[in-house]
Amino acid sequence: MSITIKKIARDLNLAVSTVSKALADSHEISEQTKKRVLDYADQLNYVRNTYASNLKKKRTGNIAVVVPEVADSYFSTAINGIEAVAQQKNYHVIIYITHEDQSREASIVREFRSGRVDGVLMSVSSGKNTTTHLQERSQSNIPLVFFDRVCDDIEAPTVTTDDLESGYKATELLIKRGCKSVAFLGMTENLSIIRDRLNGYKKAMVDNGLDINEDLIISGGIDESVIIESLSALLTSASRPIGIIGSTEKLATLVYVVCKKLSLQIPDDVRVIGFSNMGIASLLSPPLTTITQPAFEMGKAAATILFKNLEGKKADAGIVKAVIGSLLHERGSVGGENV
Amino acid sequence: MSITIKKIARDLNLAVSTVSKALADSHEISEQTKKRVLDYADQLNYVRNTYASNLKKKRTGNIAVVVPEVADSYFSTAINGIEAVAQQKNYHVIIYITHEDQSREASIVREFRSGRVDGVLMSVSSGKNTTTHLQERSQSNIPLVFFDRVCDDIEAPTVTTDDLESGYKATELLIKRGCKSVAFLGMTENLSIIRDRLNGYKKAMVDNGLDINEDLIISGGIDESVIIESLSALLTSASRPIGIIGSTEKLATLVYVVCKKLSLQIPDDVRVIGFSNMGIASLLSPPLTTITQPAFEMGKAAATILFKNLEGKKADAGIVKAVIGSLLHERGSVGGENV
Repeated sequence: MSITIKKIARDLNLAVSTVSKALADSHEISEQTKKRVLDYADQLNYVRNTYASNLKKKRTGNIAVVVPEVADSYFSTAINGIEAVAQQKNYHVIIYITHEDQSREASIVREFRSGRVDGVLMSVSSGKNTTTHLQERSQSNIPLVFFDRVCDDIEAPTVTTDDLESGYKATELLIKRGCKSVAFLGMTENLSIIRDRLNGYKKAMVDNGLDINEDLIISGGIDESVIIESLSALLTSASRPIGIIGSTEKLATLVYVVCKKLSLQIPDDVRVIGFSNMGIASLLSPPLTTITQPAFEMGKAAATILFKNLEGKKADAGIVKAVIGSLLHERGSVGGENV
Repeated sequence: MSITIKKIARDLNLAVSTVSKALADSHEISEQTKKRVLDYADQLNYVRNTYASNLKKKRTGNIAVVVPEVADSYFSTAINGIEAVAQQKNYHVIIYITHEDQSREASIVREFRSGRVDGVLMSVSSGKNTTTHLQERSQSNIPLVFFDRVCDDIEAPTVTTDDLESGYKATELLIKRGCKSVAFLGMTENLSIIRDRLNGYKKAMVDNGLDINEDLIISGGIDESVIIESLSALLTSASRPIGIIGSTEKLATLVYVVCKKLSLQIPDDVRVIGFSNMGIASLLSPPLTTITQPAFEMGKAAATILFKNLEGKKADAGIVKAVIGSLLHERGSVGGENV
């Protein structure tokens, strides 16, 4: 116990534990009291060097969330779920964006080796495939939980959704709605979730007696102009109505963009289902049918597992693999009655 | 120069400067070389404790971005602009979300006092009005730049857009399109940008010989159900067609939601303009007319000013106040020809 903390407590007529908690920014202490304590501590030139004191305690009070982007509503919602848990634990959530760039991802993960955060929640970026940069993480011993986009080569708890089943359901609905062909618009087959959704698509095609045509499986990458070009080529050549599964929010909205450009009508010429958590899916023209992931719940679940690990309470002996189901919201973009 | 760095350089047949840069995660060094150096350093039990070494150097290699949310396309785009600059400077960007909660904001800002980041870019949260929690920051001497939502009470560089002119232009367009009344949907008048947009609205009303009716100025806060209720009341009572300015993206889309619920047609019954950077504004039914802020450029400008301050190169003697113009994108939601 430092002499300064005792002095602050005495001079402000507060309990030592209150001062100590106020200096640690505990949620148990009111903003007003925190301010009083901190201001007085400043007067006394008491430097609360969290940095230095954390080096001693080996606790930073931060958890990191590493995501490919925040412009996608899945990630922004999942982050909200993570923050709901972190706030209760009095932790700050700091967010790093990789922009689907594995070398940025590597640089961020490398930083964790030097102990900037207590734990990491991660949804991996797409990109070539090498996972060496993530394996470095294991050497750092910082608890890690993957959510949504997992890395199979690394042993860590995962929180995912039923991507295979969702891909299956989406494909089946488009077949039922009389699409002459069904296309799958992926981003990269290197990504666990895209692979699973694609496998669901393939299974539904086979189960419904349809051939799998590789020309209808488009891995567009992340370059928007390339995706638009591939989509335009597909939509001008395919027999219509064609069904399209956009395996990400961005890809689904690009189908709308290209249809508009080519004057194709949704759902008459093209029927679309997108994996998306967009609040305004129902305001699009026509409203977009979505597979909606339980983003908030997934964020919460992943954070809960992470904090269990941080607190040394392993949920169970093995590695946790939580799977939470997605929901299919049917809207105008798939057309009317089954055929 | 540590003995270990020399040993690593000798054993791996690299220049000492290369090893040093690789250990500092410089962008000048290839991923491959970095990995080689780091792996070998690990073998030698060389602990690159950035944490400890940064305490000495007083440099963390991080800048913080503090924003109310990331689900709004303005903020996600501005962050991309910030990251474009930070990456060149070999800095990590770490993002903190306040969720429009001033006590979270206070807690985040308080953390900066203890030297976790080298500089801060901030868009303040809405909320009551007290800025004491931000004033604490001044005591920390960490360079700070405000973007978009500024705090007038604190002397710091700002990057904003022409909110007053934009509010004026939006209002004038709705008047020209024959709206019998024009409503302004704000969030809180405590926020600089909302206040400026509202002032633009008021000025346009007066300049066009229209009365300012306080019933048409709605400060909805951030509770969605409250906003929906106020909007429903407004839309059932107002003389139509009514023009509505949604001063945030969320508010503009809520106008669509409420119109749908009340079976009101946009643009026949209700004409809407929203402040929004949504890529899919043109895909809504009908396409949303937007005031689009130069979000990416604003992020870039703010980060550039921050790095100038970090590098000790003040752009000029006074405090920089950069203003970048927004664009009005006219789409179906305001109806056809002028009346």
